[in-house]
Amino acid sequence: MVRDMLLIDCLEASKWSRERFLELREGGVDCVHVTLAIWENARETLTRIGHWRRLLDENSDLVALALTADDIESITASGRTAVVWGFQNTSPLEDDIDLVETFHTLGIRIIQLTYNVQNHVASGCWEDPTHGISQFYGRNVVREMNQVGMLIDISHCNEQTGLDAIEYSERPIAITHANPSGWVGFDIELKRRNKTDECIRGVAEGGGVIGLSMYPKIMRGGGGSTLEDFCEMVEWTAERFGIDAVGFGTDFNTGHPPEAITWWRAGRFLRASPVPGKLAVWPEYFDSPAKFPGVLEALKKRGFSDEDLAKIAGGNWLRLFRESFGPKGA
Amino acid sequence: MVRDMLLIDCLEASKWSRERFLELREGGVDCVHVTLAIWENARETLTRIGHWRRLLDENSDLVALALTADDIESITASGRTAVVWGFQNTSPLEDDIDLVETFHTLGIRIIQLTYNVQNHVASGCWEDPTHGISQFYGRNVVREMNQVGMLIDISHCNEQTGLDAIEYSERPIAITHANPSGWVGFDIELKRRNKTDECIRGVAEGGGVIGLSMYPKIMRGGGGSTLEDFCEMVEWTAERFGIDAVGFGTDFNTGHPPEAITWWRAGRFLRASPVPGKLAVWPEYFDSPAKFPGVLEALKKRGFSDEDLAKIAGGNWLRLFRESFGPKGA
Repeated sequence: MVRDMLLIDCLEASKWSRERFLELREGGVDCVHVTLAIWENARETLTRIGHWRRLLDENSDLVALALTADDIESITASGRTAVVWGFQNTSPLEDDIDLVETFHTLGIRIIQLTYNVQNHVASGCWEDPTHGISQFYGRNVVREMNQVGMLIDISHCNEQTGLDAIEYSERPIAITHANPSGWVGFDIELKRRNKTDECIRGVAEGGGVIGLSMYPKIMRGGGGSTLEDFCEMVEWTAERFGIDAVGFGTDFNTGHPPEAITWWRAGRFLRASPVPGKLAVWPEYFDSPAKFPGVLEALKKRGFSDEDLAKIAGGNWLRLFRESFGPKGA
Repeated sequence: MVRDMLLIDCLEASKWSRERFLELREGGVDCVHVTLAIWENARETLTRIGHWRRLLDENSDLVALALTADDIESITASGRTAVVWGFQNTSPLEDDIDLVETFHTLGIRIIQLTYNVQNHVASGCWEDPTHGISQFYGRNVVREMNQVGMLIDISHCNEQTGLDAIEYSERPIAITHANPSGWVGFDIELKRRNKTDECIRGVAEGGGVIGLSMYPKIMRGGGGSTLEDFCEMVEWTAERFGIDAVGFGTDFNTGHPPEAITWWRAGRFLRASPVPGKLAVWPEYFDSPAKFPGVLEALKKRGFSDEDLAKIAGGNWLRLFRESFGPKGA
């Protein structure tokens, strides 16, 4: 088993409980980026933060909140999993630029500019791909996130929003959970969820990282995809965009009732999901984060050196977090 | 003095007080569309509604709330000014499609899709003119407004949002307060605030109305514009788009402290106004709604028939309100 490295999963969106945290420990996951808001507004997000604080307190033998890269290392050293808080939408900011710093103070470290659709800030992957970051609020949010040390995530954004973020951001940005369209192809459901070569190259050249996912809906072969497929995608991505730009962002999620899926898809802005609402079935090779050791073994067998594997497993994310989570110029 | 007609001003945004209501009475204004929200969210708008209820109660000898075209006629017959409540933004709806009907129940009858910038629904006149109504929430809001009887206003929207609203809306829409770029020209400050021929023609052909304004910032000649200029613009617009499509929407506002102007321009999404923040000085011929009689006299002198003048003064708006304020198919 490969364990002389830090393992970071840069997006899991399960219904969290002690059982899930135990799976993270079983899988050797040293750090996980979790989602506190999808459509929640500021007030609702404060409640989510309170809920998460209690959840971490109740499971403090297994997990702890990380605010810095140093925190991740010390939590890992204590034999626990470091949790990084993020939003998959700017909805908690509502229309208030000052809330970026407020939520940073409260412990949020990663914010995706929008989730699937258009908001005040940007356009998501379901919208016209040519509509990017808005001229006023959007650019100001990017500037403010750069200033306070909030990592910009473009995973569910559309093509132009990604390219705009690459252009406007003065600090590296992240694709926490998406796959390369260039390898997956463009013919799957929700095809725009994945990222073009141009977008990934821009993120990589800026010092950012893409988190690759086994999620069937964005994977070549869908539900029939294999561990070999995943390893081939990791290799292809590392060869094309550089070993320093690749990490894991599984998008793993489980335990949610059907209403949660409808909430993700339709929020309050539609009365029904615009896409089929059934829960994805995860492939057997990754039906839980407990299966991470098998993924690392397979990558090692494929020929990655220990050094390269350490970068993919968590080194790249840790480097990006270290550069991203503090105020500009600090 | 010309008074055998209904006079409707389809947008005034003053800091309202008894003094302002007295000016409306002095000017013979039978109905005014006022703004309850610019950037306010749902909760804040509920407070604005409460404030307005008290304001109307305290001045019930001068003004009353109108929910229907019949209300406007009966309030007018009682010698008072009918007040129509509107929003200049979809911000009170937040991300919740059900709030369209909720605010209709509370008395709101006109909603502008966005105010200057991009929101969940559409893009405003400061944004890229080619970005229109969003694919999911935006289209759904249009459908819902059509359904419940909420008049769609595109005044501060950009070109494509206006064209999209014309295409998607199954009921007539309004430009409550803007001028034709084709007459004003494209070289003034905030030039995109005015409307192209294509946009006005689309609104007119759908049975909608444009409310013309003396506001110096969107008027040919700016602060030096004259009553003759205004009359020429009314004539040009009526000749080009039809006498049934023209009304007043002065955008008159006064009494606000400088902070209010910054609020309109920057909301909470910027820390300072992106355009010069000084209050506009209104031309002497229209430095108060009390000057409306002079405007009507000048239009009559220009040669408008009594019948045509009655349409411009308020007949067109009253017709549109009658068609718009009830549920679809009612």
